[in-house]
Amino acid sequence: MTNRIGLFGFGVVGQGYYEIAKNHRPALLPETIVVQNKNKKRDHSLQFSFDPKDILDDPCDIGIELISDPAQAYDYVSSLLKSGKKVISANKKMLSAHLPALLELEKTYGGSLLYEASAAAGIPIITCLDCHFAGDDISKLQGILNGSSNYILTRLFQDDLSLQEAVKLAQENGFAEADPTLDINGSDVSSKLTILSLHAFGRYIPEGEILTIGVQHVHAADVALAKSLGLKIKLIATAQKDKEGLNLHILPTLVGDNDPLFLVENEYNAAKITSQNLGEQFFQGKGAGSLPTGASVYADLTKAEKGYGYSYDKLNGKKITTELPQAASLEVIISADSPDALHPVIGSASIHQANGRYWAISTVSTAELIKRLPAIEANKLSIVALNNTISEDNVLAQIQRQETVNIS
Amino acid sequence: MTNRIGLFGFGVVGQGYYEIAKNHRPALLPETIVVQNKNKKRDHSLQFSFDPKDILDDPCDIGIELISDPAQAYDYVSSLLKSGKKVISANKKMLSAHLPALLELEKTYGGSLLYEASAAAGIPIITCLDCHFAGDDISKLQGILNGSSNYILTRLFQDDLSLQEAVKLAQENGFAEADPTLDINGSDVSSKLTILSLHAFGRYIPEGEILTIGVQHVHAADVALAKSLGLKIKLIATAQKDKEGLNLHILPTLVGDNDPLFLVENEYNAAKITSQNLGEQFFQGKGAGSLPTGASVYADLTKAEKGYGYSYDKLNGKKITTELPQAASLEVIISADSPDALHPVIGSASIHQANGRYWAISTVSTAELIKRLPAIEANKLSIVALNNTISEDNVLAQIQRQETVNIS
Repeated sequence: MTNRIGLFGFGVVGQGYYEIAKNHRPALLPETIVVQNKNKKRDHSLQFSFDPKDILDDPCDIGIELISDPAQAYDYVSSLLKSGKKVISANKKMLSAHLPALLELEKTYGGSLLYEASAAAGIPIITCLDCHFAGDDISKLQGILNGSSNYILTRLFQDDLSLQEAVKLAQENGFAEADPTLDINGSDVSSKLTILSLHAFGRYIPEGEILTIGVQHVHAADVALAKSLGLKIKLIATAQKDKEGLNLHILPTLVGDNDPLFLVENEYNAAKITSQNLGEQFFQGKGAGSLPTGASVYADLTKAEKGYGYSYDKLNGKKITTELPQAASLEVIISADSPDALHPVIGSASIHQANGRYWAISTVSTAELIKRLPAIEANKLSIVALNNTISEDNVLAQIQRQETVNIS
Repeated sequence: MTNRIGLFGFGVVGQGYYEIAKNHRPALLPETIVVQNKNKKRDHSLQFSFDPKDILDDPCDIGIELISDPAQAYDYVSSLLKSGKKVISANKKMLSAHLPALLELEKTYGGSLLYEASAAAGIPIITCLDCHFAGDDISKLQGILNGSSNYILTRLFQDDLSLQEAVKLAQENGFAEADPTLDINGSDVSSKLTILSLHAFGRYIPEGEILTIGVQHVHAADVALAKSLGLKIKLIATAQKDKEGLNLHILPTLVGDNDPLFLVENEYNAAKITSQNLGEQFFQGKGAGSLPTGASVYADLTKAEKGYGYSYDKLNGKKITTELPQAASLEVIISADSPDALHPVIGSASIHQANGRYWAISTVSTAELIKRLPAIEANKLSIVALNNTISEDNVLAQIQRQETVNIS
């Protein structure tokens, strides 16, 4: 049985999937490839179409959507699902915004939608959450979900680069976009956390409701402090269940060497899942790149071929309802260039001067931090979660010890 | 659609699966449970059958085999496959010996066979190898695949116990059988490595052909040496592809703190897979226990329900042929109570005396070690692979430094 496959988009991910299929099973190559830009230089041995109808109005069996524009991606994916087709997508922004509607279309028209490549690129995390954690009760999911940010943090720790230098290097090595904003401000991670939370907990929390602080204000002084404590800083996404609902937050976080996340470096991603049946499961793999992301698309294709669809086990057959996250308390280190910048966020905590920066350690609620995000951004506040790696007193003692150290 | 499910065996794994199905989806509970021993004390609220025909001659849709006797397990599984049924098994000894025959039955009669719980208990490693690594080229698979051995090694390193004390503790905590032989001599791992190699490389290497040295002769002096070098010893299974075929070996191995295997402790298992598309993937999870292993059976059941069968992507549609492993060279530390015991294995390497033991460092071939296994066993030789963590010279220097240290 050969399936007719239509592909939208031929960028980094599309080319990765294409190469894998070509080398391994040409029957899984697309019959039609629709691209947008007629003037882009492309492989001359391939034929491209510029008309989406060549896929949408054609009796193809499986449609693959790998374009960057979320609105257009939604048009293509929803249109294919309305024709009862099998659809594969990697568009995390689009999926995160539209999963409830897309699931309804899937149910109504009998198609199926797979999207392994939309989170943690080469790690089969969505399929594992959906299938291997069936019948399980997940209490916590924690992960490093953005390859660019992790690459940048790795450079800060290993090569003593500044953030700007590290971003430039990430771009040169193909781990960050020309406009790296969505990567370094954590927005990309919040899309993924929304998608993963639906599979892990059966709860749909729009990404805009998640406390999201990226790596954009991590300072060389933070790196020096973490190093002096034997710790690293990673951009950690957390979703944790409590009696009322889900706590969700994404922010730079201290990680100790007894945590498997400590060894996740460069463009690698990871996810740690705590559940009733399985204890702690840990997955680590490449979180960016043409082949790793293309491999997840290819794997989805082999699943679609067999008729595999997500079971959304944690929804228990119920319709998706939109929920808000619960507020959680976080112990954080906050630092800035001036003491005034700290006041709106730190409450009554005392301010310490060291390494040419002003520091406070405070317990803050995620809801409060969300309200203060404009001030945090305006004042370039650096916020790093303690993550139970170390006591407030020990951090304070180290900050005070560093007072004479000069950070360039 | 409700499937009629028949279950053989109601031990630790069977009870784990039963509990998960009962709590989550009673439709996945077995209609019939066949057990062997009429006199065993069992849950009185459940009905048991003692006649295998109650499943084998019945129009059940899915048969689950979770008994311990490999010969009987083969009878049940092959008989179910001959009726074209969907079958789930966790019997690694049986599978490792009979996979070629069982795959033929699957193909001939149109049934399907899933066995996620047979390797690394709670880690979805077989499904991931089969599906997520489709279209990929795996060059190396390395893992900690026996929960009991890893628990025992953890106790040696964390609590300074003797091997005998650690084995006793493992038994008390339910991580080792009353007869722990198959766990501590590595035999259990070799079954798993045969199964995983079929999925990872499309090659069937009978477990008896794999160099297998367990943890039975790891000595307190080895632990002291590894600790003094900042390393740990783990029982590592390795399958590595070269131009000719596969190198396979299982033996106690030094692991450094830059390797994610370093943090795998207690009954946890792990697998590290290096491939062309995905770089290095790492999986870690519980490798023993009723719920983790039962969860893999339950996950297989949800897959069987959807008609999912393994694709054996690496076989490329070819029939299984039995292969022998390629010989590989290993740098190893060999130690014993007497210098005479070392001579047959170490070639021309020099012998050093330290900590009341005799030591040599030598590069040996796996084929040579297999020949010497009876002598290794008779002389209780301890053999630990260096695994590129450290140079021979540095190990030697540390052994010589330890000469005055007294190991009780």
